[in-house]
Amino acid sequence: MGNFFGISFLILALALLLNTHSAFQPLQTSVAFSILGYNITCYVIPRAKDAFIKIGLYGKDMSKKGKPIIPETIGIIPAITYIFLMFCFIPFLFLKFLVIDTSGGGNREIGISQDYDKFKLFPHNKLSSYLSGMLSLESMILLGLIDDLFDIRWRHKFFLPAIASIPLLIVYYVDFGVTSILIPNFIKNYFELPFNNIDLKFGYYIYMAAVSIFCPNSINILAGVNGLEVGQSLVLSILLLLNDSCYLIPLDKNSPSYDSHLFSAAILIPYIGVSLALLKFNWYPSQVFVGDTFCYFSGMVFAIVGILGHFSKTLLLFFIPQIFNFLYSVPQLFAIIPCPRHRLPHFNPQDNKLYPSRVIFDKRLNPIKEKILILLENLKLLSLIKEKDIKTGEIIVKESSNFTIINLILVWFGPLREDHLCLVILILQFLVGVGSLIARHTIGPWLFGYDNLHWLVQ
Amino acid sequence: MGNFFGISFLILALALLLNTHSAFQPLQTSVAFSILGYNITCYVIPRAKDAFIKIGLYGKDMSKKGKPIIPETIGIIPAITYIFLMFCFIPFLFLKFLVIDTSGGGNREIGISQDYDKFKLFPHNKLSSYLSGMLSLESMILLGLIDDLFDIRWRHKFFLPAIASIPLLIVYYVDFGVTSILIPNFIKNYFELPFNNIDLKFGYYIYMAAVSIFCPNSINILAGVNGLEVGQSLVLSILLLLNDSCYLIPLDKNSPSYDSHLFSAAILIPYIGVSLALLKFNWYPSQVFVGDTFCYFSGMVFAIVGILGHFSKTLLLFFIPQIFNFLYSVPQLFAIIPCPRHRLPHFNPQDNKLYPSRVIFDKRLNPIKEKILILLENLKLLSLIKEKDIKTGEIIVKESSNFTIINLILVWFGPLREDHLCLVILILQFLVGVGSLIARHTIGPWLFGYDNLHWLVQ
Repeated sequence: MGNFFGISFLILALALLLNTHSAFQPLQTSVAFSILGYNITCYVIPRAKDAFIKIGLYGKDMSKKGKPIIPETIGIIPAITYIFLMFCFIPFLFLKFLVIDTSGGGNREIGISQDYDKFKLFPHNKLSSYLSGMLSLESMILLGLIDDLFDIRWRHKFFLPAIASIPLLIVYYVDFGVTSILIPNFIKNYFELPFNNIDLKFGYYIYMAAVSIFCPNSINILAGVNGLEVGQSLVLSILLLLNDSCYLIPLDKNSPSYDSHLFSAAILIPYIGVSLALLKFNWYPSQVFVGDTFCYFSGMVFAIVGILGHFSKTLLLFFIPQIFNFLYSVPQLFAIIPCPRHRLPHFNPQDNKLYPSRVIFDKRLNPIKEKILILLENLKLLSLIKEKDIKTGEIIVKESSNFTIINLILVWFGPLREDHLCLVILILQFLVGVGSLIARHTIGPWLFGYDNLHWLVQ
Repeated sequence: MGNFFGISFLILALALLLNTHSAFQPLQTSVAFSILGYNITCYVIPRAKDAFIKIGLYGKDMSKKGKPIIPETIGIIPAITYIFLMFCFIPFLFLKFLVIDTSGGGNREIGISQDYDKFKLFPHNKLSSYLSGMLSLESMILLGLIDDLFDIRWRHKFFLPAIASIPLLIVYYVDFGVTSILIPNFIKNYFELPFNNIDLKFGYYIYMAAVSIFCPNSINILAGVNGLEVGQSLVLSILLLLNDSCYLIPLDKNSPSYDSHLFSAAILIPYIGVSLALLKFNWYPSQVFVGDTFCYFSGMVFAIVGILGHFSKTLLLFFIPQIFNFLYSVPQLFAIIPCPRHRLPHFNPQDNKLYPSRVIFDKRLNPIKEKILILLENLKLLSLIKEKDIKTGEIIVKESSNFTIINLILVWFGPLREDHLCLVILILQFLVGVGSLIARHTIGPWLFGYDNLHWLVQ
């Protein structure tokens, strides 16, 4: 492991030496930080994990023979590694503001900014937004850790990301404050509006808070299979990087989106490093569990990238599988259909495979609900067990597979071993994401009148 | 308790309404936030403290009959309350930067800053330093919590504040970067130097990191008596406020130090609110223990105030009692004199009072050490138990009071009940602090050729 460290420091040093005049300077540095983050996380996890069990942070892996005890909340390790790497990243990301004369007490009588063309970094006046993003992220890590420690009730923890997003929103207000959004062309034409953007004012802050609540929670509810929390986050970050590269590869630095996607990529690449290291230990059969901390942390990274990069609508497109999972869960979450205490897949120790878990209807369901369930089964969205009433000839629904995407995949492709199940979900997520990306740059321009991806429409 | 909330919101609202054109606008708002912080902390502590015991965060109070179990690490509650209040404080502290035209993607084609004279807030370009301070503070809270959870070894935890100070130092480098300090007049004259300041360059960052390490750790080692950790932090913050008011009361807004001391006061006042609430529960007999988290949090608040306000040397003057405690402990810390496992005062359940704890010398000490101990006893800095060797007539030192300021106070004034002991220490600390403050503004100007407190020397 000492070797790995040596190598990564070497790579870091090389990258820093080579990047002074490249067009992608921040990206080279971020790759170096990513490698460093991977190595640090890989170094710390095996050394720290027993300490987590010792203080009571552990869980049982229910889908394994003997239900072994696994350390929980290990996601705090990549999260803290990441945030401190991002602090050290600052001098490689932003132009320096040089105070030439000061009367003391922190005053800035004469000051200049470093030359942009020479250094190819981000303008100094974007530093505040970056710092506010890091404050939100660190708040999320802190609140996530507290949630893992104290097991906060579901209806409270749902709002933790909104609290963590306070610094991001407040600094946005003080430091940027633009709250207008583009109106799709067809709406503009239909209502014959004389303007093509609308100022949401305070509504824009509610929208940003909603994005911050949505991303962490939607990752948190698509969970419970070894490697799934980290895997889906990695797929999401790869999709976002693909989207970024659409703007970066043409090297059109005059495009208004160029900088914001370079920024997004620079934030995501080190994230991929630390998450890959976590996946190494969290993949089937898991040696560690990631905890709510990691789901919150990941979701907040995406929310920050989307908000600061001003592409939060595109961001939400990549969350389609999570949105589907949520909508699909609604009948059970809101008790329209009975919801058992656990909805994780059923583990069969004989063949070491997972089967869809089922909810048994003790009382007969309302006939309308039964009809809908049967319709869903015909659409291949459920697996039911039905019985024919001997007297009336009616069909009675006795059991149904639980309403989660994980069970649905098992209905379609199951039974599967846990790692194969995870892989199938990740592959589907990736394919849906690529589809969304293509749709974004084909249907999007048609709706809004233009695409901010200039090379595509020119 | 609902009443308290109502009242504090009322005060907050009033303060916000009244403060638009006052010279002390940030201070009025900070008083309102302070009251709010006090109320929130008072509301949360009694409701949350049992949850801390439940997850294993508790300690035994050794200086009470029956050694009751007390929840530990409660300092995380005022710390988190404080940091989120400081996020919400931002719009009341800093001028807004208004982006008038943007090409999208977070770009700022045309932007202006709000008018300083109209709003009487801090310039927008200081926002980054403030955010970096909050990042360091939040990192300290996070690392403090991890220390309390995992009981990190002494030689590692000593450096946690240095890690937490990384964002502060890095943003200082990117955003301000002035690293020169004034040379005292007598040195300048003696060496006939042609300049009156010297550029420490990288050394200045080491100095700032040292201040960040020193403040939290020095509070952490003067601990172990109900109310002492919070009490000494409150005395420190009152002394710093006294120092600030020397610069603020003359209302000389052209003084270069005016802004930095207004800033310092604005940061300290809400801190006093949340700490007072903690003291309410931590004062003798303690219902809660504060944990390392609180000591680190407090120390970091002071370090940030001193570094961002550019008066870190003055700050260190107020830490004289803590510095004395450290120097006084050195013989035992570095094993020059044997050190027992615990050095807390000895509790006598009969009279409910504390007595100096003692170290018993099993082996006879080296005669030089014995002579020094006897000298210290004559200077009233130790209490010894000696024996005369019947054969040789030599005086042998058998026992000594332990080398901590707490035991020394008990040697001087003991035995004392725990709360009286704490009060005596706090009063002494306050008196020494006021003495330092006076010395700062009388000897300081003589050493440096001028005082930045203009009204005093004019």
